[in-house]
Amino acid sequence: MKRQMMDLFSPFSGKHRLLALPVVFLLTTAGTAQSPDPVKLDLAHRLVKEELTKGMCFSDLEELCRLGSRLTGSDQAQKAVAWGEAKMKAYGFDRVWLQPVTVPKWTRGKPEKANLIQKGRKPVPLTVCALGLSPGTPAKGLEAGVIEVQSLKEADSLGGRLQGKIVFFNRPFDESLISTFACYGGAADQRSAGPSIAGKHGAVAVLVRSMTNRTDDIPHTGMVNYQKNLPEIPAAALSTRSADLLSSQLKTNPDTRVRLTLDCRNEAPVTSWNVIGEIRGTEFPDEIILTGGHLDSWDLGTGAHDDGAGCVQSIEVLRVLKSVGYKPRRTLRAVLFMSEEVGGIGGKEYGRIAEQSGENHIAAIESDRGGFTPRGHSIQLPDSTVKKYQDWVPYFSFFDADKLVRGGGGVDISPLEKTGTHLMGYTPDSQRYFDHHHAATDVIGAVNPRELKLGAAAMAVMVMLIDQEGRK
Amino acid sequence: MKRQMMDLFSPFSGKHRLLALPVVFLLTTAGTAQSPDPVKLDLAHRLVKEELTKGMCFSDLEELCRLGSRLTGSDQAQKAVAWGEAKMKAYGFDRVWLQPVTVPKWTRGKPEKANLIQKGRKPVPLTVCALGLSPGTPAKGLEAGVIEVQSLKEADSLGGRLQGKIVFFNRPFDESLISTFACYGGAADQRSAGPSIAGKHGAVAVLVRSMTNRTDDIPHTGMVNYQKNLPEIPAAALSTRSADLLSSQLKTNPDTRVRLTLDCRNEAPVTSWNVIGEIRGTEFPDEIILTGGHLDSWDLGTGAHDDGAGCVQSIEVLRVLKSVGYKPRRTLRAVLFMSEEVGGIGGKEYGRIAEQSGENHIAAIESDRGGFTPRGHSIQLPDSTVKKYQDWVPYFSFFDADKLVRGGGGVDISPLEKTGTHLMGYTPDSQRYFDHHHAATDVIGAVNPRELKLGAAAMAVMVMLIDQEGRK
Repeated sequence: MKRQMMDLFSPFSGKHRLLALPVVFLLTTAGTAQSPDPVKLDLAHRLVKEELTKGMCFSDLEELCRLGSRLTGSDQAQKAVAWGEAKMKAYGFDRVWLQPVTVPKWTRGKPEKANLIQKGRKPVPLTVCALGLSPGTPAKGLEAGVIEVQSLKEADSLGGRLQGKIVFFNRPFDESLISTFACYGGAADQRSAGPSIAGKHGAVAVLVRSMTNRTDDIPHTGMVNYQKNLPEIPAAALSTRSADLLSSQLKTNPDTRVRLTLDCRNEAPVTSWNVIGEIRGTEFPDEIILTGGHLDSWDLGTGAHDDGAGCVQSIEVLRVLKSVGYKPRRTLRAVLFMSEEVGGIGGKEYGRIAEQSGENHIAAIESDRGGFTPRGHSIQLPDSTVKKYQDWVPYFSFFDADKLVRGGGGVDISPLEKTGTHLMGYTPDSQRYFDHHHAATDVIGAVNPRELKLGAAAMAVMVMLIDQEGRK
Repeated sequence: MKRQMMDLFSPFSGKHRLLALPVVFLLTTAGTAQSPDPVKLDLAHRLVKEELTKGMCFSDLEELCRLGSRLTGSDQAQKAVAWGEAKMKAYGFDRVWLQPVTVPKWTRGKPEKANLIQKGRKPVPLTVCALGLSPGTPAKGLEAGVIEVQSLKEADSLGGRLQGKIVFFNRPFDESLISTFACYGGAADQRSAGPSIAGKHGAVAVLVRSMTNRTDDIPHTGMVNYQKNLPEIPAAALSTRSADLLSSQLKTNPDTRVRLTLDCRNEAPVTSWNVIGEIRGTEFPDEIILTGGHLDSWDLGTGAHDDGAGCVQSIEVLRVLKSVGYKPRRTLRAVLFMSEEVGGIGGKEYGRIAEQSGENHIAAIESDRGGFTPRGHSIQLPDSTVKKYQDWVPYFSFFDADKLVRGGGGVDISPLEKTGTHLMGYTPDSQRYFDHHHAATDVIGAVNPRELKLGAAAMAVMVMLIDQEGRK
């Protein structure tokens, strides 16, 4: 116990708050749910306080967002790579490097246009955006009748009736679900898989209801997963209000048509990079604890929540631990993954190299659910292991970040699962996430500085506990 | 048990989900932390689902905010009274009535002006707003040198040196605190009590740093508590950026002056109303469970979070319970209090009449901390009683609203304490509250519909549990 105190706080041993704690409390054992270790609890408090008063992640996010959107393969994404590298060097991490990855390059081109067309009436504009990897339409646009469907199955069952049509996937979020990620999970197949099913049956284009809980005029983009050997047809998202309008018009006038013009296109792949920085462990340097987010974003906003937040928080975990004088026993590594939005490419490459080189990532925490107020962490492990991690609840309760529950880690870190890494996802409150996800409103103004900082603090506390006690 | 099931669900007995639950679960006792009563747990799930899918509180809040700001004594506040009365009648509550209260009338007048004045330089505009109840300045404004202080004590200690000066209270929020209400609580004395202390020593006006966690250009108003028999001097809030600017200029140039023009004034008191609606209890109609918020707001925004949210949630609790066919055993009452922002007048009058008439309010839940994502409820009772309420945690955990902790109820319901009422405050996440509190940004666009609805659901579950089990 004493040794650990010395190790933890060598630069601070004379002045931290522990000394004021009652002795009886020091004698209780560490790491049980009943009685948190006072040294670590004190450090958790100090990390939160340091972050709230001197945290850098919000100003870092302001800088990152000023670079513009970071669509994978774009010039701005490359600038963001340089920014991330310089930032981690400036914070004095022991080692900072780039890991090359080959990424697709897709460009949106000129602003999209869509109009609702009915005989004898003026065209009515619909708010629309091209979906990622979609090809463009002919320069003058395409026009066709519209078939509304609620599911992939319904579209597939219509078969040849889709020929020459625009297929309109309009199943909304199930608002009865508490987690908006569950809402998203129940609807996103329309966007990812709808275009290939429609293309298979000869449709000329696809429109998808935007993936959001909001009823508004903001379209939300996202990647289409075009299947090999099927026609790749143009695909776009309608804002939920435009989707509601189109749907209501189709009910009264099934001959309603849509005219759609998309200028997007796929270009040749380019080389980009994962950005990696680490602080070497003093006792077990070969045991790596990773924090990560993805550096690429969609191009409509500036990716403040998705996933600029996760990037700056991942860096911040190392910075704040360093700034309070913490000396990690294990190696702490922050990774800014490239091209999560388009193919999860950076994560796959990182995982491949980690496996190949036999690196031992004991745990990885991804932050890719926005920079909102903390709830806790999801843990991608069996219930019996999750229960063990719940011994740590008391270290998170004082700042309301103590939901340690079973759940996924994240796209970027998932390739590490096969090496036995304990995968975790930082879990902020989800209610506002899909207001901004993949949309023009995902900008710095949608991020609250204290919410972002509390998230970084939650991750820092988790990293500190794993570093101190090892994984469960 | 069976009787209770029948009572609870008479309109639904054949079709609710309980029937699918394993029998063994039904045999466990109700009301223990270990095993929540399945009937009530099922009802809690249904209330949350009903609210998320068919909740009315967000559209109600849109309506309310469209009336404009609701400064106590203003025409819009009177319109809001009529709105609240009509709304509760439209929802079919058993009884809806108005309770007269005499409220102050203060008007802001023309937009405020403040300029930083330095010799040989052009005046620099400061963003400023008059504080509630402040008198105006002379029509042409007043100009004086500025003394910056960090506390009431410091101001008081300067005594005669404040003569003829503008006193500038500039102590910022303590950002190290987790709850932003704690930040506010540590700074708000400057606004409420600063002007009288400055006036006592002959100061000509007061400027106060806005009560917010943000660094921005938005001034936040709020009431001044002028002490009797002391001069009432003009008082205004500076935005935090203007406060920082003024402070930095005073450091390099102590002769910096400020010119301030306020057009506000106090008018004669007017009659307004608390708006009250109730659904009568079927078994214990004399036992009242109250939900409440305050209908008046400040005049800069439209009081969406403060406290339109609390009003629509308080109504919604009764509406949603009614809409799922719930028949309360006790009387459920929603109260929209008038003039909380200026003197807490409606709450005091409601409490006076409740005491006078011997009404038995067994519990009261106030929502006045914004329409943000739920954390739980604060309970204004000793720890031993709070612990008993924590038996109910399982009814709130599934939607992350399960923090049942010791803490204040709310200004409006506090006069009920002397009648033995159990006072509670609905507690949403606090991080964003002071971005909007008393400011022009407190508008409907700052409210997320799902967050607001989940809050109403949390209150509805609490009311249902108290109604079913009685208070703890």
